[in-house]
Amino acid sequence: MNTYSSPVKVAIAGATGYAGQELVTLLARHPHITLAAAMSSSADSAERPLPRLARLWNGKVEPLNTDRLANEMDLVFLAVPEKAAADLALPLVEANVRVIDLSGAFRIRDTADRARWYPTTKSLPAGTAYGLTELFRNDVKDARLIANPGCYPTAALLAMLPLVKAGLIDTAAGVIVDAKSGISGAGRAATDRTHFSENHGSVAAYGVLGHRHVAEMEQEVGSTVTFVPHLVPLDRGILETIYLRTTAGTTGEKISAALHATYADEPFIRLTGDALPEIKHVAWTNFCDIGWKFDAPSGRLVLVSCIDNLVKGAAGQALQNVKVMYGFEERTGLL
Amino acid sequence: MNTYSSPVKVAIAGATGYAGQELVTLLARHPHITLAAAMSSSADSAERPLPRLARLWNGKVEPLNTDRLANEMDLVFLAVPEKAAADLALPLVEANVRVIDLSGAFRIRDTADRARWYPTTKSLPAGTAYGLTELFRNDVKDARLIANPGCYPTAALLAMLPLVKAGLIDTAAGVIVDAKSGISGAGRAATDRTHFSENHGSVAAYGVLGHRHVAEMEQEVGSTVTFVPHLVPLDRGILETIYLRTTAGTTGEKISAALHATYADEPFIRLTGDALPEIKHVAWTNFCDIGWKFDAPSGRLVLVSCIDNLVKGAAGQALQNVKVMYGFEERTGLL
Amino acid sequence: MNTYSSPVKVAIAGATGYAGQELVTLLARHPHITLAAAMSSSADSAERPLPRLARLWNGKVEPLNTDRLANEMDLVFLAVPEKAAADLALPLVEANVRVIDLSGAFRIRDTADRARWYPTTKSLPAGTAYGLTELFRNDVKDARLIANPGCYPTAALLAMLPLVKAGLIDTAAGVIVDAKSGISGAGRAATDRTHFSENHGSVAAYGVLGHRHVAEMEQEVGSTVTFVPHLVPLDRGILETIYLRTTAGTTGEKISAALHATYADEPFIRLTGDALPEIKHVAWTNFCDIGWKFDAPSGRLVLVSCIDNLVKGAAGQALQNVKVMYGFEERTGLL
Amino acid sequence: MNTYSSPVKVAIAGATGYAGQELVTLLARHPHITLAAAMSSSADSAERPLPRLARLWNGKVEPLNTDRLANEMDLVFLAVPEKAAADLALPLVEANVRVIDLSGAFRIRDTADRARWYPTTKSLPAGTAYGLTELFRNDVKDARLIANPGCYPTAALLAMLPLVKAGLIDTAAGVIVDAKSGISGAGRAATDRTHFSENHGSVAAYGVLGHRHVAEMEQEVGSTVTFVPHLVPLDRGILETIYLRTTAGTTGEKISAALHATYADEPFIRLTGDALPEIKHVAWTNFCDIGWKFDAPSGRLVLVSCIDNLVKGAAGQALQNVKVMYGFEERTGLL
Repeated sequence: MNTYSSPVKVAIAGATGYAGQELVTLLARHPHITLAAAMSSSADSAERPLPRLARLWNGKVEPLNTDRLANEMDLVFLAVPEKAAADLALPLVEANVRVIDLSGAFRIRDTADRARWYPTTKSLPAGTAYGLTELFRNDVKDARLIANPGCYPTAALLAMLPLVKAGLIDTAAGVIVDAKSGISGAGRAATDRTHFSENHGSVAAYGVLGHRHVAEMEQEVGSTVTFVPHLVPLDRGILETIYLRTTAGTTGEKISAALHATYADEPFIRLTGDALPEIKHVAWTNFCDIGWKFDAPSGRLVLVSCIDNLVKGAAGQALQNVKVMYGFEERTGLL
Repeated sequence: MNTYSSPVKVAIAGATGYAGQELVTLLARHPHITLAAAMSSSADSAERPLPRLARLWNGKVEPLNTDRLANEMDLVFLAVPEKAAADLALPLVEANVRVIDLSGAFRIRDTADRARWYPTTKSLPAGTAYGLTELFRNDVKDARLIANPGCYPTAALLAMLPLVKAGLIDTAAGVIVDAKSGISGAGRAATDRTHFSENHGSVAAYGVLGHRHVAEMEQEVGSTVTFVPHLVPLDRGILETIYLRTTAGTTGEKISAALHATYADEPFIRLTGDALPEIKHVAWTNFCDIGWKFDAPSGRLVLVSCIDNLVKGAAGQALQNVKVMYGFEERTGLL
Repeated sequence: MNTYSSPVKVAIAGATGYAGQELVTLLARHPHITLAAAMSSSADSAERPLPRLARLWNGKVEPLNTDRLANEMDLVFLAVPEKAAADLALPLVEANVRVIDLSGAFRIRDTADRARWYPTTKSLPAGTAYGLTELFRNDVKDARLIANPGCYPTAALLAMLPLVKAGLIDTAAGVIVDAKSGISGAGRAATDRTHFSENHGSVAAYGVLGHRHVAEMEQEVGSTVTFVPHLVPLDRGILETIYLRTTAGTTGEKISAALHATYADEPFIRLTGDALPEIKHVAWTNFCDIGWKFDAPSGRLVLVSCIDNLVKGAAGQALQNVKVMYGFEERTGLL
Repeated sequence: MNTYSSPVKVAIAGATGYAGQELVTLLARHPHITLAAAMSSSADSAERPLPRLARLWNGKVEPLNTDRLANEMDLVFLAVPEKAAADLALPLVEANVRVIDLSGAFRIRDTADRARWYPTTKSLPAGTAYGLTELFRNDVKDARLIANPGCYPTAALLAMLPLVKAGLIDTAAGVIVDAKSGISGAGRAATDRTHFSENHGSVAAYGVLGHRHVAEMEQEVGSTVTFVPHLVPLDRGILETIYLRTTAGTTGEKISAALHATYADEPFIRLTGDALPEIKHVAWTNFCDIGWKFDAPSGRLVLVSCIDNLVKGAAGQALQNVKVMYGFEERTGLL
């Protein structure tokens, strides 16, 4: 399947955050990819090892070096804040380096919406694809810049979109996404919000009706989405409960058929039917598990979708996209 | 305030479950109540201490003794499964012993609905009150039998009902309650569902569209409620996120006013406005914290309501009801 | 028992840390103590409420005001870093205000040792007592300055000292204290060490052979102590496993007798014998639970001691000391 | 390196416990091993899938079939209770099937000791090796029966033995192993001990001075070991703190040299020096991380050793042993 003669030479900008370290771990063991450089997000720090990755990856994180990224790499992962990503991506693309951006900088296609949610992004280069692998694989294949989806939209859209596209969902009647996320989703910075004692034994909603990931969901679904994320006291993983109304004539068989038709051959999507998925079964993997419960008389449909936010919701999906871009077997080196 | 001359003599049937032990702890330190007997839920076990309550309560749990309950007590708490509660409650009420039942046996007033959800309950005695203290205090005062509300309905109804009653909610447009509960809510029995390793690092939905607590919610709200409970990896506490549509003309001021008018003098309700509540702030207390976020242009309203399921959701509310029944100060001995 | 005519007027310096907030909570509900002021640890912050204590305490935290502490209070709790405590305590004592210091500033009596471990402490005023309540109650009664013990030494010394004093322990053969502490013990500051994701699913040793609390243990035991604290993924509570060798002639009966003789009438010490204590049973209480296992043939003795680090290990013991100082019933307002 | 022409055909007896499922997961992705059968621990259950391993392993767990194990397999893993293991192993060995036993049945060489700790084991067949891979690799290579080490001894012995063998430890002065283990170590059975609510927010010692794993430690160390395991509120992982006294003349350099000489080329041992290891860094991997702190003046040495109990402490080490037995590269398919 791989039509590529030599290993792909890649680098990471932003290797010390949680998503960055996950990328280093995954790339270090992939047979057809060479991790040629892992850089921190700023130019002024000295070289340093990542001790907890010892024997998995023995390189050193080096200061950010844009020239090296532009001149020596086939592909660069950006795991930096969106402003830095917006600045780095364009020159790389122009230098014919393929880019996978894990920030939100290039996810929104509509200019006005993008200006509202990601004002630091100046423009969207030609050849940009929204990297929700299973549903946009053709776009990803030839893309020069991949906007790797947010963790919340990944779980929500993989569950909803096949049903929306099949005309089974009355999106005007309301689309509600209630998300429960582990704390690694809040990033590596030590803040009141990430303090152990503030989260242990607790659950808290945040960003109610104002979280930026809603923009990606609304863009793909094509209607208003009510989105409320919550922090739950675990490290890795997201479970989303999605409340929908179906269109007239929708049956349980049609729902099941639409999902199975879309995902029959997908290595990383597991449809669990009414045995609803749990975070435990997807943590540390690239799986997205999707289950559902349909109340035919009332037309109420509840979807439950689970991923590991650092794998399928970030580094794993990014790696999956690389494999699509270079024609590698998607399962290699990914659980 | 207490017009009662001597301490109230109470007993607990079902003292070894989580709610039962919580009751023992609360009652043991209350100045105007004498815990005269703590019984297990069956007649055939020997007497035994509750070692983890040593120095808080030094009595012994004795086998269930219905005669003693009927002849020697002013009031009995039933913290036993619903079938046992349905059997025990009626003779006690007939013997003029007041009863607070923590099971669901007597919560549903409509005969057909009760037959569907709690088929072992034969009838609802006169003088039965639904013990959601803040909203039914007058009924509680003179009741002979209190149906202590379920943990999930307690949090949901305290948040929703004042708004529904004020005509601010378009209940026909859908009422969705997404609940996140600690594992103590699943009871003390050791099962696959309560195993540590199945819950640590995980979140799981259960009882989707079929959990019995929905019946209480629908009874009080007067319309269909979509209810999905989830288990989250913590011990005590519930957070519910409630998705509503408001009626035309509803404003943020009206929402706030309806809640503040209802709860202005309530010692155990804390309205947090748009600083949304967290489980951590109510765990080990009898508080119900309620916050909300209103999107005026779209009429979408999100309520967030938190309680400790073993206190306000069970033993604490039961004790609060006793105090209402006997005219004690409600805050004494309750955090 | 209370020979004090009017409520004791107290203040807290450092009310926003975890120990400080715990103190506010405990003091706010105590009938014979008036919390006259809760101050932050610095002079330059504005007044602000503690929202999570709403309805428990409705005051405002005010900037540090040393004059007010010296002129208006009967007693001041210092819940500030040791340097600030060392500076604040002396003028207060001179102004005849009694002081309970929760930092380590005044715990070490030997000048050289104190200079090594707490170099910012200038001197130890006359009337200073080490406030390990159960074992130094007479000193506490009349003290002007209480050095409230560290959380780790509290659990370790309550378990060990009665046996050491009874001559049952061969301290020269080695005293090892292996402690497991919840993360609240690391304080409220957001750091890499207190980040949720760094602790969830993990255990880490820290301060091996160099933690300052060893000085208090060695001072009271009178020999070298090997002390290794660990952070475990929970919020509140400490469990210490203590490895000792007994002197010739020691029997299980003598061990049990020494502990029971010391603690027979103590409301907050629970001796559990060989049913070893667990953190869960002491969390949110002022209890210290102590169990033990003795291997008579080899003379090996293992003690297990548990407390809640914020209650018995800090605020609870501080409040207990106040009650001893003023002759109040020790159990009032403390679980 | 692999001198074996065709894939090794293996089976698991006891595939539904935590160690068994871990084995299935690891074996399913190994290129040179064919998982030919996964059997439950008893003969009378029907075939059933392992849904949470869907897309990783799509086989079915079948009832125990001893004949098939004896006639069709190259090697069998026993992940069953020790009594069943003792019964199954001997006929398999006689049928020339190699066996890796994850129970304790064959770990103790001394007949009297074995009779005391594992009375159901009848005899120790010739060709039995203690499978602590790094330290007994030559024995493992040609063994017919591998006694896979216990999780606690794995972590303890990998840290201690190189120092004991180098003569640096005064074992007569006492060897203390204080272990902290995740709850998966207590097995998959739902009991009071594995209930979520009994462990969340708690730590508990168990098996003090009487846990069977002490026998393996004493066998290899050659002296009395004081061993106290604790359950900590996490799922996977063990951290052990080991308290030792060194012999005269021991220096920090000698300690470091002995460890580095032993483990220089080992892919799964990481020596962290005085940057002490944490469970988080080894969870989900086959690593054993070892750190230490030496107080030269007093001769006190503290070792800290971490593993994932289900990987290096069970299934991972078992797989590593297979690779040694068949000459496969040890790192393939193991993190």
